[in-house]
Amino acid sequence: MDRRYFVRLAALSSLAGLFGPARSAEAGSSAEVATKATAEQQHLDAMHKYDALTGGPKLTIGMLVYPGMFLQDLVGPLAVFEALMNREIHLLWKTLDPVGNEQPGAPAALIPVKPTTTFANCPKNLDVLFVPGGVPGTLTMMEDPEVIAFLADKGKTARYVTSVCTGSLILGAAGLLTGYKATTYWALQDVLQELGAIPTPGRVVVDRNRVTGGGVTAGIDFGLQIVAMLRSEAYAQAVQLYLEYDPAPPFQSGSPEKAPAVVKQFLDEMFVGLKHAAKQTAIRARKRLG
Amino acid sequence: MDRRYFVRLAALSSLAGLFGPARSAEAGSSAEVATKATAEQQHLDAMHKYDALTGGPKLTIGMLVYPGMFLQDLVGPLAVFEALMNREIHLLWKTLDPVGNEQPGAPAALIPVKPTTTFANCPKNLDVLFVPGGVPGTLTMMEDPEVIAFLADKGKTARYVTSVCTGSLILGAAGLLTGYKATTYWALQDVLQELGAIPTPGRVVVDRNRVTGGGVTAGIDFGLQIVAMLRSEAYAQAVQLYLEYDPAPPFQSGSPEKAPAVVKQFLDEMFVGLKHAAKQTAIRARKRLG
Repeated sequence: MDRRYFVRLAALSSLAGLFGPARSAEAGSSAEVATKATAEQQHLDAMHKYDALTGGPKLTIGMLVYPGMFLQDLVGPLAVFEALMNREIHLLWKTLDPVGNEQPGAPAALIPVKPTTTFANCPKNLDVLFVPGGVPGTLTMMEDPEVIAFLADKGKTARYVTSVCTGSLILGAAGLLTGYKATTYWALQDVLQELGAIPTPGRVVVDRNRVTGGGVTAGIDFGLQIVAMLRSEAYAQAVQLYLEYDPAPPFQSGSPEKAPAVVKQFLDEMFVGLKHAAKQTAIRARKRLG
Repeated sequence: MDRRYFVRLAALSSLAGLFGPARSAEAGSSAEVATKATAEQQHLDAMHKYDALTGGPKLTIGMLVYPGMFLQDLVGPLAVFEALMNREIHLLWKTLDPVGNEQPGAPAALIPVKPTTTFANCPKNLDVLFVPGGVPGTLTMMEDPEVIAFLADKGKTARYVTSVCTGSLILGAAGLLTGYKATTYWALQDVLQELGAIPTPGRVVVDRNRVTGGGVTAGIDFGLQIVAMLRSEAYAQAVQLYLEYDPAPPFQSGSPEKAPAVVKQFLDEMFVGLKHAAKQTAIRARKRLG
């Protein structure tokens, strides 16, 4: 989706011509290199007609990463954001140490994530401040003074303050959802109320500049919604086709209303302790906000 | 979704009781620890009624990772597989060096992935052999003799041979789709034919033990389909609710048929070079197979 990236790739790659006009993948002589450069320029020129699908001012996107987050919550929106042109993406944490290695209270994630930017080096004004969800990490983050102070500060100036899944509980604990409609993971909607937000079940909930997504896989729907707000609907549609996002779940069990009763009951019982712990954590977090 | 994991977490975690029956998160005295252990046993006992949603023999899942793969292709199915009980998941590569760091011909991925298991240490009989997609990595893998030999070997004994997105082109290059119906990324359906497969557009295409998913985001639909085949439909439904997979794309542009004409045309033009390179690569790979 990044035209310059594709052109650079074609220029640098041993797979020369991957994204340029059709030509031999074995080009190598200086005449062929010159032809390639011309072809790339022609390709770039031809693409100008699609500026509405690719253009727009530089975007600065900051995504919190933390131990005990759920990787899909991060990677869904990231897949969308990475498809944008003219953007920088920061994976934000206290340090540059990978998160998701063995931690007290959290199992090792199969894929640890290395932050790209520390809180201290985070750009001042973010176009998007994003917080993924995941347990048990969410509950720990809700009571982590350094994380809460960082989010409260960046949330003041961010163009959009956003989350997926239980990430909204962290935003709420930082005082960023007080008086805002917001959503979270289906099993924890009640907890938002303890944080001063207005629980509003939905796949993506927009209230002024707060944009919160539902559980886990809602991150892709959320990402496309944000792109439409940052760029245009046409731009988001191009990203959607790029990601072939034409979902067709083989079953209809993705919400508590749709799931078979026994499935809903199983997860309800599994989440009894989580619901209780999340509520108690929210009450403490709210008290701290004063 | 992993009952034993949740119970272990409750036992070990500073967030004690997260997934057990509701009780104070501050339990700490020995009497409280004893109460906790009893509560966990009661919880485990109570959960036995859900064995149909959580039980089943040990599953061994092997997922290829490689430079230039697309992270969502891997993480969608991984989110589903991680929700299974009684499974081991191997992220397979030649070495344990992270893939996605700067590579000739491929830009650095924002999140490099550290393999967990080398080809040499891969278990002999996999329940699932899975290959994600992504360009330019796919084209490189299609002509990498070590990767092709590894997949051809494991594919002989794997219970299911599977892919998402352009991963099917790698399976095809390893001779694993000859005579099988299969799908791939929407823009590259034609390439499957060069590899001896029967191109069959679809979100998830099942032909005997070959299960191939469409582009990128199809990985979640694919994962649920595989879980239903490995465990049961009810099990897959439980995972679906756990992941709150109730997609609601804000736009209808996820397939070439649904996308607005200008969006489709833009991506078609962007992919001209890729289509050509993929076809040439497939022709060479097929020749090598003999």
